[in-house]
Amino acid sequence: MSHPTPGRPLSQTDRTRHQRLREQGSLDRSDLDAILKAGFVCHLGVTVDSNLLVIPTVYGTDGATLYFHGSVASRSLVASPDASVCVTVTHVDGLVLARSVFEHGVNYRSAMIFGIPRLVTDPEEKWTGLRCLTEQATPGQWDYARQPSRKELAATSLLALSLDEASVKIRSGAPDDGDTSDAERGLWAGVLPLQAHWGDLEPDPALSAHIKTPPHLANRQGVSAFGS
Amino acid sequence: MSHPTPGRPLSQTDRTRHQRLREQGSLDRSDLDAILKAGFVCHLGVTVDSNLLVIPTVYGTDGATLYFHGSVASRSLVASPDASVCVTVTHVDGLVLARSVFEHGVNYRSAMIFGIPRLVTDPEEKWTGLRCLTEQATPGQWDYARQPSRKELAATSLLALSLDEASVKIRSGAPDDGDTSDAERGLWAGVLPLQAHWGDLEPDPALSAHIKTPPHLANRQGVSAFGS
Repeated sequence: MSHPTPGRPLSQTDRTRHQRLREQGSLDRSDLDAILKAGFVCHLGVTVDSNLLVIPTVYGTDGATLYFHGSVASRSLVASPDASVCVTVTHVDGLVLARSVFEHGVNYRSAMIFGIPRLVTDPEEKWTGLRCLTEQATPGQWDYARQPSRKELAATSLLALSLDEASVKIRSGAPDDGDTSDAERGLWAGVLPLQAHWGDLEPDPALSAHIKTPPHLANRQGVSAFGS
Repeated sequence: MSHPTPGRPLSQTDRTRHQRLREQGSLDRSDLDAILKAGFVCHLGVTVDSNLLVIPTVYGTDGATLYFHGSVASRSLVASPDASVCVTVTHVDGLVLARSVFEHGVNYRSAMIFGIPRLVTDPEEKWTGLRCLTEQATPGQWDYARQPSRKELAATSLLALSLDEASVKIRSGAPDDGDTSDAERGLWAGVLPLQAHWGDLEPDPALSAHIKTPPHLANRQGVSAFGS
């Protein structure tokens, strides 16, 4: 398990240098951590059999490594073990409604991570990585549900991607055309926030009526998601 | 502007054939339309200077074509005009909490579109495409805000991707282990839904107090987003 320095600023490489929107780039590792910890679904870009695929998949992070399921990506890993992937996590926070269409945009927090994923084969790391992945989506669930059997572990492929090379972009706040001549047009401008929250639990219809809802799930109802 | 047949089922190709989760695949074009219409941010996979990038970007669709801004992708287009991209749109609907960790999953709707994007150069299509993109995120805003000037149009690159080759995956409903021996463990199982809605408008601090909120924005407050 790799342990790069979590306190270190993000390094710049050709692909993480922000060419378009420099003002929205962040080299602060705490921004990367916060974005990754706030979510649980990433978009994995990988080349499989010469086809570029962008696959939504569940992930977890311990601050130094991103863990994700590898069914599709591991096919690619076998075919070309030195192939880079790009994993992107995005939280959409709202619509930026400017006076002009041209200045419209989106408030968001996004992280792109680059690297060559590693198939996790060490049993201890696989256990820890799967726990990390499960706990990130649903804290408390790893110890509540039945944990993986030896057979299930063998049927699961887990990939690890170091957080060494990453790019963070954040946009927040009001539109940028408040001090232009467009501001004299008398048009409303501002932000329409997008908010996410966890809804009311929906019990499996197959569930016996006497089974109680555990607190770690009951307490999550109505709680906001993605740090929005 | 391409006009493939919107009523036709989605065709299968090597990269759209569902290899992992066949039961979750859909060949129904109306599912593709619904997923694309429900969102406004996609993840664009593109190779730029030999680097695979997954970029979150705004899109719009008219049912036959996906339009998206092309600042980064158009660099790639110039470098390799026959390069395929993969555009993925994902809506996360909830956590599937099974009795066993192994059966945990996510309820989601996702569409992947494959193809070679086309730089839109025809002035009329560019206007229509930008309007489509703006209206998809914020219906009513194109006619309310100041529309693009000739100079702004020239500074905007718009890409068009045909919806001919696409893959749709949907998972919904309860966990799958209600009829296994794990169901006898007395554990709660079901779905924790994830819901998104538009919040209260946040006026630009630079806004004059006398400017009224237009109905197309005021009416959107509290409305659910992404069809969740």
